[in-house]
Amino acid sequence: MVSELKSDILHEVILRRPDQSHKGDYGHVLLIGGSLQFGGAILMASQASVGAGAGLTSVATDKVNLTALHARTPEAMFIDWEDSDQVVENIKKNDVIVIGPGLGTDQKAVDLVKQVFATVKQNQILVVDGSALTIMAEYHLMFPRQPYTIATPHQMEWERLSGVQLNYQTEHQLNEVQRQILNLDVLVLKQHHTLIYAQDELRQLLIGGAYQATGGMGDVLAGTIGGFVGQFKKNHLKAVEAAVYAHSMIAQEMARHSYVVKPSFIADALPNYMARIQSNL
Amino acid sequence: MVSELKSDILHEVILRRPDQSHKGDYGHVLLIGGSLQFGGAILMASQASVGAGAGLTSVATDKVNLTALHARTPEAMFIDWEDSDQVVENIKKNDVIVIGPGLGTDQKAVDLVKQVFATVKQNQILVVDGSALTIMAEYHLMFPRQPYTIATPHQMEWERLSGVQLNYQTEHQLNEVQRQILNLDVLVLKQHHTLIYAQDELRQLLIGGAYQATGGMGDVLAGTIGGFVGQFKKNHLKAVEAAVYAHSMIAQEMARHSYVVKPSFIADALPNYMARIQSNL
Amino acid sequence: MVSELKSDILHEVILRRPDQSHKGDYGHVLLIGGSLQFGGAILMASQASVGAGAGLTSVATDKVNLTALHARTPEAMFIDWEDSDQVVENIKKNDVIVIGPGLGTDQKAVDLVKQVFATVKQNQILVVDGSALTIMAEYHLMFPRQPYTIATPHQMEWERLSGVQLNYQTEHQLNEVQRQILNLDVLVLKQHHTLIYAQDELRQLLIGGAYQATGGMGDVLAGTIGGFVGQFKKNHLKAVEAAVYAHSMIAQEMARHSYVVKPSFIADALPNYMARIQSNL
Amino acid sequence: MVSELKSDILHEVILRRPDQSHKGDYGHVLLIGGSLQFGGAILMASQASVGAGAGLTSVATDKVNLTALHARTPEAMFIDWEDSDQVVENIKKNDVIVIGPGLGTDQKAVDLVKQVFATVKQNQILVVDGSALTIMAEYHLMFPRQPYTIATPHQMEWERLSGVQLNYQTEHQLNEVQRQILNLDVLVLKQHHTLIYAQDELRQLLIGGAYQATGGMGDVLAGTIGGFVGQFKKNHLKAVEAAVYAHSMIAQEMARHSYVVKPSFIADALPNYMARIQSNL
Repeated sequence: MVSELKSDILHEVILRRPDQSHKGDYGHVLLIGGSLQFGGAILMASQASVGAGAGLTSVATDKVNLTALHARTPEAMFIDWEDSDQVVENIKKNDVIVIGPGLGTDQKAVDLVKQVFATVKQNQILVVDGSALTIMAEYHLMFPRQPYTIATPHQMEWERLSGVQLNYQTEHQLNEVQRQILNLDVLVLKQHHTLIYAQDELRQLLIGGAYQATGGMGDVLAGTIGGFVGQFKKNHLKAVEAAVYAHSMIAQEMARHSYVVKPSFIADALPNYMARIQSNL
Repeated sequence: MVSELKSDILHEVILRRPDQSHKGDYGHVLLIGGSLQFGGAILMASQASVGAGAGLTSVATDKVNLTALHARTPEAMFIDWEDSDQVVENIKKNDVIVIGPGLGTDQKAVDLVKQVFATVKQNQILVVDGSALTIMAEYHLMFPRQPYTIATPHQMEWERLSGVQLNYQTEHQLNEVQRQILNLDVLVLKQHHTLIYAQDELRQLLIGGAYQATGGMGDVLAGTIGGFVGQFKKNHLKAVEAAVYAHSMIAQEMARHSYVVKPSFIADALPNYMARIQSNL
Repeated sequence: MVSELKSDILHEVILRRPDQSHKGDYGHVLLIGGSLQFGGAILMASQASVGAGAGLTSVATDKVNLTALHARTPEAMFIDWEDSDQVVENIKKNDVIVIGPGLGTDQKAVDLVKQVFATVKQNQILVVDGSALTIMAEYHLMFPRQPYTIATPHQMEWERLSGVQLNYQTEHQLNEVQRQILNLDVLVLKQHHTLIYAQDELRQLLIGGAYQATGGMGDVLAGTIGGFVGQFKKNHLKAVEAAVYAHSMIAQEMARHSYVVKPSFIADALPNYMARIQSNL
Repeated sequence: MVSELKSDILHEVILRRPDQSHKGDYGHVLLIGGSLQFGGAILMASQASVGAGAGLTSVATDKVNLTALHARTPEAMFIDWEDSDQVVENIKKNDVIVIGPGLGTDQKAVDLVKQVFATVKQNQILVVDGSALTIMAEYHLMFPRQPYTIATPHQMEWERLSGVQLNYQTEHQLNEVQRQILNLDVLVLKQHHTLIYAQDELRQLLIGGAYQATGGMGDVLAGTIGGFVGQFKKNHLKAVEAAVYAHSMIAQEMARHSYVVKPSFIADALPNYMARIQSNL
């Protein structure tokens, strides 16, 4: 029932871009997160979205994060998350919404999750990560029905959200049932060997390792997924799978030269790694 | 009628600098842009102006962009765009004015466009990009007559400005007529194969590709043009052509190792690329 | 009595991480420091903690340092040191507390040292560095009894803290007695050939050199120690020894290509150096 | 009368550091400059001082420059130039004071120049650069008698300061007389082939080139001189000469791969270049 996620997913998804195309073809991705305490998370997620090749990347965050965002990633655009009108307008006009990296769980964070869930529509893709999942659990929120939904909990977050306790999470059927109940299209359950649950399919990642056990790793994954689903539109699930695979494969490569792999370095390595896939090197 | 823009333009324009020369000989370039939301754009344009070799680069922008500007490009000088006296003084004393990258379209942006258009004089060069073109369209502004004028619209911006609809933009004569009506010396019409319209000449760029389809690519082009026209003074049109060619050629080279080419990386690569041209490598 | 600290300490401590592990296994490290004047010190210490492979790195500092922290090291989390509740909560929940880099000696700094000393508990590890040691001397503070304590004074700081004057510091027994009186588990006495005093053991570092004689070197050491004791839990003393050795060995390697070795570069080099140790290269 | 400055000055000055030494032996350098408009200049000068190997580098500047300073160069310490007490205290306790890079010419700048000139004492070294020289000219200030004084004007600044008009500056005797009248120990007169005037000696730099003709080049030179005179104490004049030579030689090397050489890159290249000199490579 569980099949291994293999490198061929990369070659299936990451294809040479057609000549006659422009940035509108590669997805407008909006990332929402980054409180005073956890600002670095949204910075890394944004860096990953840009590195993954999103056509446009916008970041709704606390204004304290503006300068660090642009010092690191001038390619990203900024939205002050206190400016509700602009936030709503941007939720509406972006193709992909990633909410959660470094979001925190205060009232502002709760309002943003609710705002996003109330605003997203069909043909949009919603990626829910980190503390946005904690907020969902606390406020008993379901994933919105209209958009294509992807969630990237680690095991504790999944327990809180789904009620499936840690020691039962090896029972795939339980996770699968909860995924469906929660209106979730793709569940990326992060763990030693990450699992991806979706309609008719359960895949497991067997690469990666403990050199990834450092803060920020999940934020970069969320941003990478955002960039991939934004530009690789033929099949959302495959785009997610490719993102998950590429993220850990880059880490695995880097681990030959890094005892611990800095998440921000994975974000920076995406364009080169993807070029090598495209060239079949 | 359309002739291909070829690499010989680089060798014609990018020559070894004469020994007896100083930074005053290489152009003082003022870039104006960078709202709260789009600050990254002016940062990338400034980085390109410095990298292209402008003698001095000044940046009039929102004060929120000061720290990121200096963290990235300490070679650039800062002007708070709320300080009207200093803005006017700098419009007067710089050789090249680039207005538009990340400028936005609010009242401040409109005022700045009008201020620039009212202040620039003969012997100056004006590069109009991005939302400055949108503002021109909305307020029915013509390019000022005194300076040498260059505009770098993408196709939608050109439609708004010239009235030539997208599906008629393949008719070169229409674009050319509008260029003349608008008092524009050089029209860089950005598209899959960018076209450069000028008196008696129409050239087309046949290099570059979809790895450039990401936000910020045009901002770096605007800054590169600013740096080139500032220092390569013998022939403004050729300087623009060399900038357009170099910008896409660097991207094309980088694409061998980058699935998507980050615009800020092109800005950083300019000094090395130009050195290779100069050495005829 | 004094034995030489040798490279085998690295191979003993820096082992391949077990596959089934997560960031919680590699230590949550809280660094406290960075006044208006000395902010760079805490930035470098944090960078070293992240580079050394701490599972999570949090930084309690003056808010003026927030943006530079995230621009350099987005993997680190931020705590405004004016927010006492959050500071206390974080002192309680982290495995390792490093206090001192760039802390200064004003009232805020004194309060923080006292707060930390009053809050830390058994099973935590406390690293005291820089001006936190000066404050201890001035206020006649002893190291708290509950946690495992490590101090990293240079010779002047040690004189102030222990009363052992500079010209008597060569008498190891005197330093050792004072270490015990002060409740200190490990004394890292920084000097030309750094000494490490601990129960039943005195080791001396014979590598490194004057290319390390530049501001910030000690801050990076403090952060490296924090990262090492956080993740290498089998033996705290050996983790400290490995950190001290790695820090100077990296500097020594870099000195072949750097007349002076920038401390921040040592922080960045940690992941690669540790990977080489692990692979026995 | 004019002798050529040659590479042997580097080998004479940049020697292997003695093992038994610490950061106090390599000079405490205070750099003062960096207005709102010209902040990048002090950032580059500070980067050069750190890169050149100063034992400690402190920067008194406008608070707006704090974050960019630490994002770029965490090794440097910050002093808010509005805090007069701290500024005076730091002028007194540093070995070398560099005033001028990006200082501007407003009242604050004038006050700082006067404060420095009134405070510096024997055994200190004072480097006066950029707009500090313009202020001297405007306020008819002489260099203070107590410290060892070095000035680094370009030709226009020298004209303003000394009254020697541009077209007479080729008459070395005139410059030399003015150097003495102004109480100046070393005059570094920046031009195509920079001249160094000092007691009984006039040397000319014959390396370097027009790839250096870009804003910020002089700021990096000022910082490099600060770092060199701080640590190479045997002969101040020779330290200055070595700094001037190294700065242009690095640029000349980089020019093989850079059409224009970014000043900040020269600052970053100092440690490696100096290591190569020390090893006689």
